[in-house]
Amino acid sequence: MRQIKLIIEYDGTNYSGWQVQPNGITIQQLIEASLATMLGEPVKLHSSGRTDAGVHALGMVAAFKTGKLLPLRAFSDGLNALLPNDIAIRDAVEAPLSFNPRADAKSKHYRYTIYNAVRRSPLARLSSWHLRGALDIERMQAAASHFVGEHDFAAFRASNCAAKTTVRRLFSVSVAKDGESVIIDVHGSGFLKNMVRIIAGTLAEVGQGKKNPDAVPGLLVSGDRAASGITAPPQGLCLVEVFY
Amino acid sequence: MRQIKLIIEYDGTNYSGWQVQPNGITIQQLIEASLATMLGEPVKLHSSGRTDAGVHALGMVAAFKTGKLLPLRAFSDGLNALLPNDIAIRDAVEAPLSFNPRADAKSKHYRYTIYNAVRRSPLARLSSWHLRGALDIERMQAAASHFVGEHDFAAFRASNCAAKTTVRRLFSVSVAKDGESVIIDVHGSGFLKNMVRIIAGTLAEVGQGKKNPDAVPGLLVSGDRAASGITAPPQGLCLVEVFY
Repeated sequence: MRQIKLIIEYDGTNYSGWQVQPNGITIQQLIEASLATMLGEPVKLHSSGRTDAGVHALGMVAAFKTGKLLPLRAFSDGLNALLPNDIAIRDAVEAPLSFNPRADAKSKHYRYTIYNAVRRSPLARLSSWHLRGALDIERMQAAASHFVGEHDFAAFRASNCAAKTTVRRLFSVSVAKDGESVIIDVHGSGFLKNMVRIIAGTLAEVGQGKKNPDAVPGLLVSGDRAASGITAPPQGLCLVEVFY
Repeated sequence: MRQIKLIIEYDGTNYSGWQVQPNGITIQQLIEASLATMLGEPVKLHSSGRTDAGVHALGMVAAFKTGKLLPLRAFSDGLNALLPNDIAIRDAVEAPLSFNPRADAKSKHYRYTIYNAVRRSPLARLSSWHLRGALDIERMQAAASHFVGEHDFAAFRASNCAAKTTVRRLFSVSVAKDGESVIIDVHGSGFLKNMVRIIAGTLAEVGQGKKNPDAVPGLLVSGDRAASGITAPPQGLCLVEVFY
């Protein structure tokens, strides 16, 4: 047996998220099906985590075990020939059999993009959240700094999040303007369900003047999901990289 | 009567180009239909030019005449509410009745994007041309400089191009690297059919080593379409701005 680690890019627009589910086509399902076609055996893919419907990835990590002795190139170029245009394997490498994409992940980098202009943008619509009113970047930056460090993120997770502990460590949260876009980069040790989208939604409310930047520490301490910001829509989110 | 000038952004992926045609849905057709719905009268839109199927625009310009006294905002926000998500009016302004979007255009800025990496990119696939082999940017820049100025571009137009004269003036042609993308910006007084795409295709062949940068002046003098480069695919092209 050997284990292969895949680095995967996808446009999540047309999928019901990463993970296999009864209703809707998922990215995991299509890659598993392509691998099964190639290897002539069923394949179970284990990932670093899930992404929701509409969320994108530049560097999702997933791994599978097989006894077949195909060259690594089969699992990149070969697999890409079988996959649809909106999913691609960026790299395939050998990993130890003990490698666990989820448990071994040291940290992840997510990017959330807001398109901030009066009129909607056709060319940015599938990769950003459109907000009309001008956002105050300095206020958002001040709020972002309060998220850095180890905190209880209970107020920043989906109501159906099943994680047992809600303490996570964020290494950096940056907010930058790029033309008409506002780019939020979040790098942390681990994430709760919808955590980045709720942080982005909260930062947007700070940028709109609806919340004070200094309210963030209180939101973290409260653990109250109802007090934090809205869940920003999925298409603005991209899993950029998983670090091991 | 009054004339309204529209600045239009669109994702051309799902359309048979700008101009109304018998087969396939076009961007002009959908905007004319939305205007007709809004104004209760047929509307004829005159544009600065056409774009091919799959080509995008950030700043297409088109104008129409009407006797209706709706506020300008109806032709931006109002029209955007009627248009699909992949087409949007960025701005609507009053123009003199004598304004002719095509004849009055002083110059245009096009951008062509190449995604230059071994593996294809799902997130860049609808806005770039994927080329695997590493492109030599310095060679492309040297070749690009030869296009600047007034030249006969007969070797750089589609075989079915109907323009009477083939002399055009380019003010600048730049080639720059941005991550895994190669960005070609072309600013000129006017363009023949497929001219930017053939220039991009020729520059790509120079970057691949198939053509010499110093071959460009000879190609221009030859007027021989068969000697210049391939027509780069439409999805890499974007009409950025039209200047008046």
